Amino acid sequence: MLRIYALRLPLSNLSLFSSHSQKPRLNNNYRTMMNYTKAASSQAFKNKKLLFRQLFEKDSSTYTYLLADVAHPEKPALLIDPVDKTVDRDLSLVKELGLKLIYAINTHVHADHVTGTGLIKTKVPSVKSIISKASKSKADLLIEAGDKIHFGDLFLEVRATPGHTLGCVTYVTGDGSDQPQPRMAFTGDALLIRGCGRTDFQGGSAHQLYQSVHSQIFSLPKETLIYPAHDYRGFTVSTVGEEMQYNPRLTKDEEMFKSIMENLNLPYPKMIDIAVPSNMVCGLQDLSVKPVDASSN
Amino acid sequence: MLRIYALRLPLSNLSLFSSHSQKPRLNNNYRTMMNYTKAASSQAFKNKKLLFRQLFEKDSSTYTYLLADVAHPEKPALLIDPVDKTVDRDLSLVKELGLKLIYAINTHVHADHVTGTGLIKTKVPSVKSIISKASKSKADLLIEAGDKIHFGDLFLEVRATPGHTLGCVTYVTGDGSDQPQPRMAFTGDALLIRGCGRTDFQGGSAHQLYQSVHSQIFSLPKETLIYPAHDYRGFTVSTVGEEMQYNPRLTKDEEMFKSIMENLNLPYPKMIDIAVPSNMVCGLQDLSVKPVDASSN
Repeated sequence: MLRIYALRLPLSNLSLFSSHSQKPRLNNNYRTMMNYTKAASSQAFKNKKLLFRQLFEKDSSTYTYLLADVAHPEKPALLIDPVDKTVDRDLSLVKELGLKLIYAINTHVHADHVTGTGLIKTKVPSVKSIISKASKSKADLLIEAGDKIHFGDLFLEVRATPGHTLGCVTYVTGDGSDQPQPRMAFTGDALLIRGCGRTDFQGGSAHQLYQSVHSQIFSLPKETLIYPAHDYRGFTVSTVGEEMQYNPRLTKDEEMFKSIMENLNLPYPKMIDIAVPSNMVCGLQDLSVKPVDASSN
Repeated sequence: MLRIYALRLPLSNLSLFSSHSQKPRLNNNYRTMMNYTKAASSQAFKNKKLLFRQLFEKDSSTYTYLLADVAHPEKPALLIDPVDKTVDRDLSLVKELGLKLIYAINTHVHADHVTGTGLIKTKVPSVKSIISKASKSKADLLIEAGDKIHFGDLFLEVRATPGHTLGCVTYVTGDGSDQPQPRMAFTGDALLIRGCGRTDFQGGSAHQLYQSVHSQIFSLPKETLIYPAHDYRGFTVSTVGEEMQYNPRLTKDEEMFKSIMENLNLPYPKMIDIAVPSNMVCGLQDLSVKPVDASSN
Protein backbone atom coordinates (compact mmCIF):
# COMPACT_ATOMS: atom_id res chain seq x y z
CA MET A 1 0.00 0.00 0.00
CA LEU A 2 2.79 2.37 0.91
CA ARG A 3 4.68 1.52 -2.26
CA ILE A 4 1.70 2.27 -4.48
CA TYR A 5 1.20 5.49 -2.59
CA ALA A 6 4.81 6.51 -3.05
CA LEU A 7 4.55 5.80 -6.77
CA ARG A 8 1.47 7.90 -7.31
CA LEU A 9 2.53 10.96 -5.38
CA PRO A 10 5.96 12.25 -4.44
CA LEU A 11 5.04 12.02 -0.77
CA SER A 12 8.46 11.89 0.83
CA ASN A 13 8.12 13.43 4.25
CA LEU A 14 9.75 16.67 3.43
CA SER A 15 8.14 17.35 0.09
CA LEU A 16 4.84 17.65 1.96
CA PHE A 17 6.12 20.71 3.71
CA SER A 18 6.28 23.83 1.60
CA SER A 19 7.85 25.82 4.39
CA HIS A 20 7.02 29.53 4.44
CA SER A 21 5.61 29.27 0.93
CA GLN A 22 2.10 30.43 0.05
CA LYS A 23 1.92 28.68 -3.31
CA PRO A 24 0.65 25.10 -3.32
CA ARG A 25 2.72 22.55 -5.18
CA LEU A 26 1.33 21.91 -8.65
CA ASN A 27 1.52 18.37 -9.86
CA ASN A 28 -0.78 16.21 -11.96
CA ASN A 29 -2.82 15.20 -8.95
CA TYR A 30 -3.23 18.81 -7.98
CA ARG A 31 -4.44 19.77 -11.46
CA THR A 32 -6.89 16.89 -11.46
CA MET A 33 -8.15 18.16 -8.13
CA MET A 34 -8.60 21.67 -9.49
CA ASN A 35 -10.89 20.22 -12.14
CA TYR A 36 -12.73 18.33 -9.45
CA THR A 37 -13.15 21.50 -7.41
CA LYS A 38 -14.46 23.35 -10.41
CA ALA A 39 -17.06 20.65 -10.92
CA ALA A 40 -17.99 20.70 -7.26
CA SER A 41 -18.30 24.47 -7.32
CA SER A 42 -21.23 24.22 -9.65
CA GLN A 43 -23.22 22.55 -6.91
CA ALA A 44 -25.39 24.70 -4.72
CA PHE A 45 -23.88 25.70 -1.39
CA LYS A 46 -26.80 24.67 0.73
CA ASN A 47 -25.70 24.97 4.35
CA LYS A 48 -25.53 28.74 4.65
CA LYS A 49 -28.82 28.98 6.51
CA LEU A 50 -28.24 26.29 9.10
CA LEU A 51 -26.44 26.96 12.34
CA PHE A 52 -25.71 23.60 13.94
CA ARG A 53 -24.18 22.70 17.29
CA GLN A 54 -23.67 19.31 18.87
CA LEU A 55 -23.53 19.40 22.67
CA PHE A 56 -22.57 16.63 25.08
CA GLU A 57 -23.77 15.72 28.57
CA LYS A 58 -21.07 13.58 30.13
CA ASP A 59 -22.92 11.69 32.89
CA SER A 60 -25.42 10.06 30.53
CA SER A 61 -23.25 10.47 27.39
CA THR A 62 -26.17 12.27 25.75
CA TYR A 63 -25.94 14.48 22.69
CA THR A 64 -28.18 17.52 22.48
CA TYR A 65 -28.47 19.25 19.12
CA LEU A 66 -29.09 22.91 18.45
CA LEU A 67 -30.35 23.87 15.00
CA ALA A 68 -31.31 27.32 13.80
CA ASP A 69 -32.12 29.11 10.58
CA VAL A 70 -29.67 32.01 10.91
CA ALA A 71 -30.56 33.44 7.50
CA HIS A 72 -34.07 34.10 8.77
CA PRO A 73 -34.55 37.50 10.45
CA GLU A 74 -35.78 35.90 13.68
CA LYS A 75 -33.14 33.13 13.77
CA PRO A 76 -35.66 30.54 14.99
CA ALA A 77 -34.01 27.60 16.73
CA LEU A 78 -34.81 24.22 18.21
CA LEU A 79 -33.10 21.83 20.60
CA ILE A 80 -33.26 18.07 20.11
CA ASP A 81 -32.93 15.94 23.25
CA PRO A 82 -31.92 18.59 25.80
CA VAL A 83 -30.85 17.27 29.24
CA ASP A 84 -32.02 18.84 32.52
CA LYS A 85 -28.45 19.21 33.85
CA THR A 86 -27.24 21.23 30.88
CA VAL A 87 -30.21 23.52 30.29
CA ASP A 88 -28.39 26.60 31.54
CA ARG A 89 -25.46 25.92 29.22
CA ASP A 90 -27.79 25.43 26.26
CA LEU A 91 -29.89 28.53 26.94
CA SER A 92 -26.77 30.66 27.41
CA LEU A 93 -25.50 29.52 24.03
CA VAL A 94 -28.87 30.24 22.41
CA LYS A 95 -28.77 33.75 23.88
CA GLU A 96 -25.16 34.43 22.90
CA LEU A 97 -25.82 33.33 19.33
CA GLY A 98 -28.84 35.64 19.17
CA LEU A 99 -31.27 32.81 18.43
CA LYS A 100 -34.96 32.54 19.24
CA LEU A 101 -35.64 29.11 20.72
CA ILE A 102 -39.07 27.95 19.60
CA TYR A 103 -39.03 24.16 20.16
CA ALA A 104 -37.57 21.67 22.65
CA ILE A 105 -37.92 18.27 21.05
CA ASN A 106 -37.42 14.70 22.21
CA THR A 107 -36.71 11.70 19.99
CA HIS A 108 -38.33 9.46 22.63
CA VAL A 109 -39.04 8.98 26.33
CA HIS A 110 -35.50 8.64 27.64
CA ALA A 111 -34.77 6.16 30.42
CA ASP A 112 -31.25 7.30 31.31
CA HIS A 113 -31.69 11.01 32.00
CA VAL A 114 -34.38 13.59 32.64
CA THR A 115 -35.20 15.67 29.57
CA GLY A 116 -34.43 19.37 29.76
CA THR A 117 -37.71 20.20 28.04
CA GLY A 118 -39.65 21.02 31.20
CA LEU A 119 -36.92 23.19 32.68
CA ILE A 120 -36.55 25.05 29.39
CA LYS A 121 -40.28 25.79 29.39
CA THR A 122 -40.12 27.21 32.91
CA LYS A 123 -37.26 29.51 31.86
CA VAL A 124 -38.56 30.38 28.37
CA PRO A 125 -42.34 29.91 28.50
CA SER A 126 -42.82 30.56 24.77
CA VAL A 127 -40.90 27.38 23.88
CA LYS A 128 -43.12 24.48 22.79
CA SER A 129 -42.26 20.91 23.75
CA ILE A 130 -42.56 18.22 21.10
CA ILE A 131 -42.61 14.42 21.28
CA SER A 132 -44.30 11.67 19.29
CA LYS A 133 -47.96 10.85 19.77
CA ALA A 134 -46.96 7.17 19.86
CA SER A 135 -44.90 7.79 23.00
CA LYS A 136 -48.20 8.39 24.84
CA SER A 137 -46.49 11.31 26.60
CA LYS A 138 -47.73 14.80 27.27
CA ALA A 139 -46.25 17.69 25.34
CA ASP A 140 -47.37 20.90 23.69
CA LEU A 141 -47.19 19.27 20.27
CA LEU A 142 -47.48 15.59 19.45
CA ILE A 143 -46.04 14.54 16.11
CA GLU A 144 -46.41 11.55 13.79
CA ALA A 145 -44.61 10.11 10.81
CA GLY A 146 -44.73 12.49 7.86
CA ASP A 147 -45.11 15.63 9.95
CA LYS A 148 -42.75 18.48 9.28
CA ILE A 149 -41.35 20.74 11.97
CA HIS A 150 -40.54 24.12 10.45
CA PHE A 151 -38.03 26.56 11.92
CA GLY A 152 -37.68 29.55 9.65
CA ASP A 153 -37.34 28.19 6.15
CA LEU A 154 -35.73 24.95 7.26
CA PHE A 155 -37.61 21.93 8.49
CA LEU A 156 -37.27 18.51 10.04
CA GLU A 157 -39.27 15.60 8.71
CA VAL A 158 -40.55 13.01 11.20
CA ARG A 159 -39.95 9.29 10.63
CA ALA A 160 -41.37 6.64 12.95
CA THR A 161 -38.55 4.38 14.16
CA PRO A 162 -40.02 2.29 17.01
CA GLY A 163 -38.18 -0.65 18.53
CA HIS A 164 -36.00 0.86 21.25
CA THR A 165 -39.23 2.29 22.63
CA LEU A 166 -42.72 2.20 21.17
CA GLY A 167 -42.69 5.93 20.43
CA CYS A 168 -39.19 6.51 19.02
CA VAL A 169 -38.93 8.82 16.05
CA THR A 170 -36.05 10.00 13.88
CA TYR A 171 -35.94 13.62 12.77
CA VAL A 172 -34.40 14.18 9.34
CA THR A 173 -33.53 17.53 7.79
CA GLY A 174 -35.64 18.37 4.76
CA ASP A 175 -35.30 16.89 1.32
CA GLY A 176 -35.39 20.07 -0.71
CA SER A 177 -32.94 22.05 -2.81
CA ASP A 178 -33.10 24.83 -0.19
CA GLN A 179 -32.40 22.47 2.71
CA PRO A 180 -28.97 21.41 4.09
CA GLN A 181 -27.00 18.84 2.13
CA PRO A 182 -26.07 16.19 3.03
CA ARG A 183 -29.21 15.50 5.03
CA MET A 184 -28.87 14.97 8.79
CA ALA A 185 -30.73 12.26 10.69
CA PHE A 186 -31.24 12.62 14.44
CA THR A 187 -31.82 9.00 15.25
CA GLY A 188 -32.25 9.04 19.03
CA ASP A 189 -31.47 5.54 20.33
CA ALA A 190 -32.84 3.74 17.27
CA LEU A 191 -29.48 3.83 15.52
CA LEU A 192 -26.28 4.55 17.43
CA ILE A 193 -22.81 4.76 15.88
CA ARG A 194 -21.82 1.10 15.39
CA GLY A 195 -24.67 0.14 17.70
CA CYS A 196 -28.34 0.62 18.62
CA GLY A 197 -30.52 1.12 21.67
CA ARG A 198 -31.61 -1.84 23.82
CA THR A 199 -35.02 -3.34 23.13
CA ASP A 200 -36.03 -4.85 26.48
CA PHE A 201 -38.01 -1.98 28.05
CA GLN A 202 -40.71 0.59 27.22
CA GLY A 203 -42.43 -1.41 24.51
CA GLY A 204 -39.13 -2.25 22.86
CA SER A 205 -38.98 -4.88 20.13
CA ALA A 206 -35.93 -6.17 18.27
CA HIS A 207 -38.14 -7.03 15.29
CA GLN A 208 -39.56 -3.52 15.15
CA LEU A 209 -36.17 -1.87 15.60
CA TYR A 210 -34.65 -3.90 12.80
CA GLN A 211 -37.50 -2.99 10.47
CA SER A 212 -37.40 0.67 11.53
CA VAL A 213 -33.71 1.14 10.89
CA HIS A 214 -33.75 -0.68 7.57
CA SER A 215 -36.89 0.94 6.20
CA GLN A 216 -36.63 4.46 7.64
CA ILE A 217 -32.90 5.19 8.09
CA PHE A 218 -30.94 2.91 5.76
CA SER A 219 -33.30 4.03 2.99
CA LEU A 220 -31.86 7.56 3.20
CA PRO A 221 -28.99 8.60 0.89
CA LYS A 222 -25.73 6.99 1.98
CA GLU A 223 -24.06 10.33 2.69
CA THR A 224 -26.80 11.27 5.20
CA LEU A 225 -25.17 12.20 8.50
CA ILE A 226 -26.19 10.15 11.54
CA TYR A 227 -26.43 12.10 14.78
CA PRO A 228 -27.47 9.77 17.62
CA ALA A 229 -28.77 10.61 21.10
CA HIS A 230 -25.73 8.98 22.71
CA ASP A 231 -22.24 7.81 22.16
CA TYR A 232 -20.19 6.01 24.77
CA ARG A 233 -16.89 5.80 22.91
CA GLY A 234 -16.34 9.37 21.79
CA PHE A 235 -17.72 9.23 18.26
CA THR A 236 -19.69 12.31 17.26
CA VAL A 237 -21.14 11.47 13.86
CA SER A 238 -21.47 8.70 11.29
CA THR A 239 -23.21 8.26 7.96
CA VAL A 240 -25.92 5.96 6.66
CA GLY A 241 -23.36 4.34 4.34
CA GLU A 242 -20.96 3.67 7.20
CA GLU A 243 -23.60 2.09 9.41
CA MET A 244 -24.94 -0.02 6.55
CA GLN A 245 -21.43 -1.36 6.14
CA TYR A 246 -20.01 -1.48 9.67
CA ASN A 247 -22.80 -1.52 12.26
CA PRO A 248 -22.03 -4.79 14.08
CA ARG A 249 -25.70 -5.45 14.81
CA LEU A 250 -27.73 -4.00 11.98
CA THR A 251 -25.63 -5.47 9.19
CA LYS A 252 -26.77 -8.92 10.35
CA ASP A 253 -29.99 -10.59 9.16
CA GLU A 254 -33.05 -10.10 11.35
CA GLU A 255 -32.84 -13.45 13.11
CA MET A 256 -29.23 -12.87 14.08
CA PHE A 257 -30.06 -9.33 15.16
CA LYS A 258 -32.86 -10.59 17.40
CA SER A 259 -30.52 -13.16 18.89
CA ILE A 260 -27.90 -10.48 19.62
CA MET A 261 -30.49 -8.23 21.26
CA GLU A 262 -31.91 -11.07 23.36
CA ASN A 263 -28.50 -11.95 24.75
CA LEU A 264 -27.10 -8.56 25.72
CA ASN A 265 -27.60 -9.27 29.45
CA LEU A 266 -27.65 -5.59 30.27
CA PRO A 267 -28.31 -4.39 33.84
CA TYR A 268 -31.58 -2.74 34.81
CA PRO A 269 -31.32 0.93 33.72
CA LYS A 270 -30.39 2.78 36.90
CA MET A 271 -32.25 5.99 36.04
CA ILE A 272 -35.37 4.44 34.48
CA ASP A 273 -37.69 4.72 37.50
CA ILE A 274 -36.92 8.42 37.88
CA ALA A 275 -36.46 9.37 34.25
CA VAL A 276 -39.43 7.73 32.55
CA PRO A 277 -42.24 9.17 34.72
CA SER A 278 -40.68 12.62 34.38
CA ASN A 279 -40.08 12.28 30.66
CA MET A 280 -43.64 11.07 30.03
CA VAL A 281 -44.66 14.65 30.80
CA CYS A 282 -41.62 16.16 29.04
CA GLY A 283 -40.03 17.02 32.37
CA LEU A 284 -43.06 18.90 33.67
CA GLN A 285 -45.10 17.08 36.32
CA ASP A 286 -47.82 19.71 36.02
CA LEU A 287 -47.95 20.61 32.38
CA SER A 288 -50.02 23.73 32.15
CA VAL A 289 -50.38 23.68 28.38
CA LYS A 290 -52.95 21.25 27.05
CA PRO A 291 -51.41 18.82 24.56
CA VAL A 292 -52.27 19.50 20.94
CA ASP A 293 -52.30 16.82 18.30
CA ALA A 294 -50.55 18.47 15.37
CA SER A 295 -51.02 15.48 13.15
CA SER A 296 -54.78 15.91 13.06
CA ASN A 297 -54.41 19.10 11.06
CA MET B 1 -39.83 39.82 21.10
CA LEU B 2 -42.52 37.20 20.79
CA ARG B 3 -45.01 39.79 19.58
CA ILE B 4 -42.71 41.02 16.86
CA TYR B 5 -42.06 37.46 15.87
CA ALA B 6 -45.75 36.66 15.67
CA LEU B 7 -46.32 39.72 13.51
CA ARG B 8 -43.63 38.86 11.03
CA LEU B 9 -44.46 35.20 10.54
CA PRO B 10 -47.71 33.34 11.09
CA LEU B 11 -45.99 31.07 13.57
CA SER B 12 -48.96 29.70 15.42
CA ASN B 13 -47.99 26.24 16.61
CA LEU B 14 -50.02 24.38 14.09
CA SER B 15 -49.18 26.38 11.02
CA LEU B 16 -45.60 25.24 11.42
CA PHE B 17 -46.62 21.69 10.74
CA SER B 18 -47.49 20.84 7.19
CA SER B 19 -48.59 17.36 8.13
CA HIS B 20 -48.07 14.72 5.46
CA SER B 21 -47.48 17.40 2.88
CA GLN B 22 -44.39 17.53 0.71
CA LYS B 23 -44.84 21.13 -0.40
CA PRO B 24 -43.37 23.84 1.83
CA ARG B 25 -45.64 26.71 2.75
CA LEU B 26 -45.15 29.70 0.52
CA ASN B 27 -45.33 33.06 2.19
CA ASN B 28 -43.41 36.29 1.75
CA ASN B 29 -40.66 35.19 4.09
CA TYR B 30 -40.26 31.98 2.17
CA ARG B 31 -39.99 33.80 -1.15
CA THR B 32 -37.38 36.16 0.29
CA MET B 33 -35.47 33.14 1.48
CA MET B 34 -35.60 31.54 -1.95
CA ASN B 35 -33.88 34.62 -3.33
CA TYR B 36 -31.28 34.36 -0.59
CA THR B 37 -30.68 30.72 -1.45
CA LYS B 38 -30.23 31.56 -5.08
CA ALA B 39 -27.58 34.11 -4.16
CA ALA B 40 -25.87 31.67 -1.81
CA SER B 41 -25.85 29.01 -4.51
CA SER B 42 -23.46 31.03 -6.58
CA GLN B 43 -20.78 30.53 -3.94
CA ALA B 44 -18.34 27.67 -4.36
CA PHE B 45 -19.09 24.52 -2.42
CA LYS B 46 -15.65 24.01 -0.98
CA ASN B 47 -15.88 21.18 1.52
CA LYS B 48 -16.28 18.23 -0.81
CA LYS B 49 -12.70 17.05 -0.38
CA LEU B 50 -12.46 17.13 3.39
CA LEU B 51 -13.57 14.27 5.55
CA PHE B 52 -13.63 15.51 9.11
CA ARG B 53 -14.31 13.72 12.38
CA GLN B 54 -14.19 15.00 15.92
CA LEU B 55 -13.50 12.30 18.51
CA PHE B 56 -13.69 12.54 22.30
CA GLU B 57 -11.70 10.89 25.09
CA LYS B 58 -13.80 11.11 28.21
CA ASP B 59 -11.25 10.71 31.03
CA SER B 60 -9.18 13.73 29.99
CA SER B 61 -11.98 15.42 28.01
CA THR B 62 -9.65 15.52 25.01
CA TYR B 63 -10.72 16.02 21.41
CA THR B 64 -8.86 14.17 18.69
CA TYR B 65 -9.45 15.29 15.11
CA LEU B 66 -9.32 13.17 11.99
CA LEU B 67 -8.92 14.99 8.68
CA ALA B 68 -8.54 13.40 5.25
CA ASP B 69 -8.61 14.42 1.62
CA VAL B 70 -11.18 11.91 0.39
CA ALA B 71 -11.20 13.30 -3.14
CA HIS B 72 -7.56 12.26 -3.50
CA PRO B 73 -7.03 8.71 -4.79
CA GLU B 74 -5.00 7.72 -1.71
CA LYS B 75 -7.29 9.42 0.83
CA PRO B 76 -4.36 10.65 2.92
CA ALA B 77 -5.32 11.41 6.52
CA LEU B 78 -3.93 12.89 9.70
CA LEU B 79 -4.86 12.81 13.36
CA ILE B 80 -4.47 15.84 15.58
CA ASP B 81 -3.93 15.18 19.30
CA PRO B 82 -4.60 11.44 19.46
CA VAL B 83 -4.79 9.92 22.97
CA ASP B 84 -3.10 6.63 23.89
CA LYS B 85 -6.32 5.14 25.33
CA THR B 86 -8.31 5.62 22.13
CA VAL B 87 -5.74 4.66 19.51
CA ASP B 88 -7.52 1.41 18.64
CA ARG B 89 -10.81 3.26 18.13
CA ASP B 90 -9.13 5.85 15.92
CA LEU B 91 -7.21 3.34 13.80
CA SER B 92 -10.34 1.22 13.31
CA LEU B 93 -12.19 4.26 12.05
CA VAL B 94 -9.32 5.16 9.71
CA LYS B 95 -9.42 1.62 8.31
CA GLU B 96 -13.20 1.51 7.94
CA LEU B 97 -13.22 4.81 6.10
CA GLY B 98 -10.54 3.53 3.74
CA LEU B 99 -8.08 6.27 4.68
CA LYS B 100 -4.28 6.21 4.65
CA LEU B 101 -3.02 7.72 7.89
CA ILE B 102 0.20 9.60 7.19
CA TYR B 103 0.61 11.93 10.19
CA ALA B 104 -0.06 11.88 13.94
CA ILE B 105 0.24 15.45 15.12
CA ASN B 106 0.32 17.18 18.48
CA THR B 107 -0.56 20.80 19.18
CA HIS B 108 1.77 20.72 22.20
CA VAL B 109 3.29 18.58 24.95
CA HIS B 110 0.15 17.61 26.83
CA ALA B 111 0.26 17.41 30.61
CA ASP B 112 -3.08 15.67 31.19
CA HIS B 113 -2.84 12.57 29.02
CA VAL B 114 -0.32 10.51 27.10
CA THR B 115 -0.35 11.20 23.38
CA GLY B 116 -1.39 8.36 21.11
CA THR B 117 1.36 9.22 18.64
CA GLY B 118 3.84 6.61 19.85
CA LEU B 119 1.31 3.79 19.96
CA ILE B 120 0.09 4.70 16.48
CA LYS B 121 3.66 4.49 15.17
CA THR B 122 4.12 1.02 16.66
CA LYS B 123 0.92 -0.13 14.95
CA VAL B 124 1.35 1.76 11.67
CA PRO B 125 5.10 2.34 11.27
CA SER B 126 4.73 4.47 8.16
CA VAL B 127 2.94 7.21 10.14
CA LYS B 128 5.12 10.22 10.93
CA SER B 129 4.82 12.06 14.23
CA ILE B 130 4.78 15.85 14.19
CA ILE B 131 5.21 18.44 16.92
CA SER B 132 6.67 21.95 17.09
CA LYS B 133 10.43 22.51 17.21
CA ALA B 134 9.77 25.01 20.01
CA SER B 135 8.39 22.22 22.19
CA LYS B 136 11.94 20.80 22.36
CA SER B 137 10.39 17.34 21.90
CA LYS B 138 11.44 14.49 19.70
CA ALA B 139 9.32 13.60 16.69
CA ASP B 140 9.77 12.55 13.10
CA LEU B 141 9.01 16.05 11.89
CA LEU B 142 9.45 19.29 13.80
CA ILE B 143 7.44 22.23 12.53
CA GLU B 144 7.58 26.00 12.92
CA ALA B 145 5.30 28.95 12.24
CA GLY B 146 4.57 29.28 8.54
CA ASP B 147 5.13 25.61 7.71
CA LYS B 148 2.41 23.83 5.80
CA ILE B 149 1.42 20.24 6.40
CA HIS B 150 0.00 18.81 3.19
CA PHE B 151 -2.35 15.83 3.04
CA GLY B 152 -3.43 15.22 -0.52
CA ASP B 153 -4.41 18.58 -1.93
CA LEU B 154 -5.43 20.00 1.42
CA PHE B 155 -3.08 21.48 3.97
CA LEU B 156 -2.77 22.84 7.47
CA GLU B 157 -0.84 26.01 8.14
CA VAL B 158 1.17 26.26 11.37
CA ARG B 159 0.81 29.27 13.68
CA ALA B 160 2.92 29.69 16.81
CA THR B 161 0.63 30.23 19.80
CA PRO B 162 2.85 29.90 22.90
CA GLY B 163 1.64 30.80 26.38
CA HIS B 164 -0.03 27.64 27.68
CA THR B 165 3.28 25.95 26.95
CA LEU B 166 6.36 27.32 25.26
CA GLY B 167 5.86 25.16 22.18
CA CYS B 168 2.10 25.41 21.56
CA VAL B 169 1.01 25.78 17.95
CA THR B 170 -2.37 26.19 16.26
CA TYR B 171 -3.02 24.34 13.02
CA VAL B 172 -5.31 26.18 10.60
CA THR B 173 -6.78 24.77 7.40
CA GLY B 174 -5.46 26.44 4.27
CA ASP B 175 -6.39 29.86 3.00
CA GLY B 176 -7.03 28.98 -0.64
CA SER B 177 -10.03 28.79 -2.93
CA ASP B 178 -9.57 25.00 -3.06
CA GLN B 179 -9.43 24.64 0.73
CA PRO B 180 -12.38 24.14 3.13
CA GLN B 181 -14.48 27.16 3.98
CA PRO B 182 -14.95 28.38 6.62
CA ARG B 183 -11.42 27.76 7.82
CA MET B 184 -10.90 25.53 10.84
CA ALA B 185 -8.42 26.31 13.64
CA PHE B 186 -7.17 23.50 15.87
CA THR B 187 -6.11 25.59 18.81
CA GLY B 188 -4.89 22.99 21.30
CA ASP B 189 -5.05 24.54 24.78
CA ALA B 190 -4.22 28.06 23.62
CA LEU B 191 -7.86 28.92 23.07
CA LEU B 192 -10.64 26.81 24.57
CA ILE B 193 -14.36 27.43 24.08
CA ARG B 194 -15.11 30.30 26.49
CA GLY B 195 -11.76 29.65 28.14
CA CYS B 196 -8.03 28.98 27.65
CA GLY B 197 -5.31 26.71 28.97
CA ARG B 198 -3.52 27.44 32.26
CA THR B 199 -0.21 29.28 32.07
CA ASP B 200 1.63 28.13 35.22
CA PHE B 201 3.64 25.17 33.91
CA GLN B 202 5.86 24.13 30.99
CA GLY B 203 7.12 27.59 30.14
CA GLY B 204 3.63 29.05 30.28
CA SER B 205 3.14 32.81 30.22
CA ALA B 206 -0.09 34.76 30.49
CA HIS B 207 1.50 37.62 28.55
CA GLN B 208 2.54 35.31 25.71
CA LEU B 209 -0.82 33.52 25.62
CA TYR B 210 -2.72 36.79 25.42
CA GLN B 211 -0.51 37.98 22.56
CA SER B 212 -0.71 34.61 20.79
CA VAL B 213 -4.49 34.40 20.82
CA HIS B 214 -5.00 38.01 19.77
CA SER B 215 -2.35 38.07 17.02
CA GLN B 216 -2.63 34.52 15.66
CA ILE B 217 -6.23 33.37 16.26
CA PHE B 218 -8.42 36.45 16.65
CA SER B 219 -6.83 37.76 13.44
CA LEU B 220 -8.51 34.95 11.47
CA PRO B 221 -11.88 35.55 9.76
CA LYS B 222 -14.69 35.68 12.33
CA GLU B 223 -16.45 32.65 10.86
CA THR B 224 -13.33 30.48 11.37
CA LEU B 225 -14.30 27.39 13.36
CA ILE B 226 -12.49 26.84 16.65
CA TYR B 227 -11.73 23.22 17.49
CA PRO B 228 -9.91 23.04 20.83
CA ALA B 229 -7.98 20.14 22.39
CA HIS B 230 -10.44 19.94 25.26
CA ASP B 231 -13.86 20.85 26.43
CA TYR B 232 -15.13 20.16 29.92
CA ARG B 233 -18.72 21.32 29.49
CA GLY B 234 -19.83 19.48 26.35
CA PHE B 235 -19.22 22.13 23.73
CA THR B 236 -17.78 20.79 20.49
CA VAL B 237 -17.02 23.87 18.42
CA SER B 238 -17.01 27.65 18.49
CA THR B 239 -15.98 30.42 16.12
CA VAL B 240 -13.41 33.21 16.23
CA GLY B 241 -16.26 35.73 16.28
CA GLU B 242 -17.93 34.04 19.25
CA GLU B 243 -14.74 33.88 21.30
CA MET B 244 -13.87 37.49 20.49
CA GLN B 245 -17.26 38.42 21.89
CA TYR B 246 -17.87 35.95 24.71
CA ASN B 247 -14.60 34.44 25.92
CA PRO B 248 -14.66 35.46 29.61
CA ARG B 249 -10.87 35.75 29.80
CA LEU B 250 -9.62 36.84 26.40
CA THR B 251 -12.14 39.64 25.93
CA LYS B 252 -10.46 41.42 28.88
CA ASP B 253 -7.43 43.71 28.51
CA GLU B 254 -4.05 42.12 29.02
CA GLU B 255 -3.58 43.27 32.60
CA MET B 256 -6.94 41.90 33.63
CA PHE B 257 -6.20 38.67 31.77
CA LYS B 258 -2.90 38.26 33.59
CA SER B 259 -4.62 38.90 36.89
CA ILE B 260 -7.25 36.24 36.11
CA MET B 261 -4.59 33.70 35.12
CA GLU B 262 -2.49 34.41 38.24
CA ASN B 263 -5.44 33.80 40.54
CA LEU B 264 -6.90 30.57 39.19
CA ASN B 265 -5.53 28.56 42.15
CA LEU B 266 -5.64 25.34 40.16
CA PRO B 267 -4.35 22.08 41.65
CA TYR B 268 -1.08 20.51 40.49
CA PRO B 269 -1.92 18.61 37.25
CA LYS B 270 -2.30 15.00 38.38
CA MET B 271 -0.97 13.45 35.17
CA ILE B 272 1.87 15.91 34.49
CA ASP B 273 4.74 13.81 35.88
CA ILE B 274 3.75 10.83 33.77
CA ALA B 275 2.44 12.61 30.68
CA VAL B 276 5.11 15.23 30.01
CA PRO B 277 8.18 12.92 29.91
CA SER B 278 6.28 10.55 27.64
CA ASN B 279 4.93 13.30 25.43
CA MET B 280 8.36 14.93 25.06
CA VAL B 281 9.19 11.91 22.90
CA CYS B 282 5.73 11.77 21.30
CA GLY B 283 4.81 8.71 23.33
CA LEU B 284 7.87 6.71 22.33
CA GLN B 285 10.57 6.39 24.98
CA ASP B 286 12.93 4.91 22.42
CA LEU B 287 12.15 6.74 19.23
CA SER B 288 13.78 4.79 16.45
CA VAL B 289 13.38 7.48 13.80
CA LYS B 290 15.85 10.35 14.03
CA PRO B 291 14.06 13.70 14.33
CA VAL B 292 14.08 15.77 11.19
CA ASP B 293 13.79 19.52 11.17
CA ALA B 294 11.33 20.19 8.36
CA SER B 295 11.62 23.94 8.73
CA SER B 296 15.23 23.95 7.61
CA ASN B 297 14.21 22.92 4.12
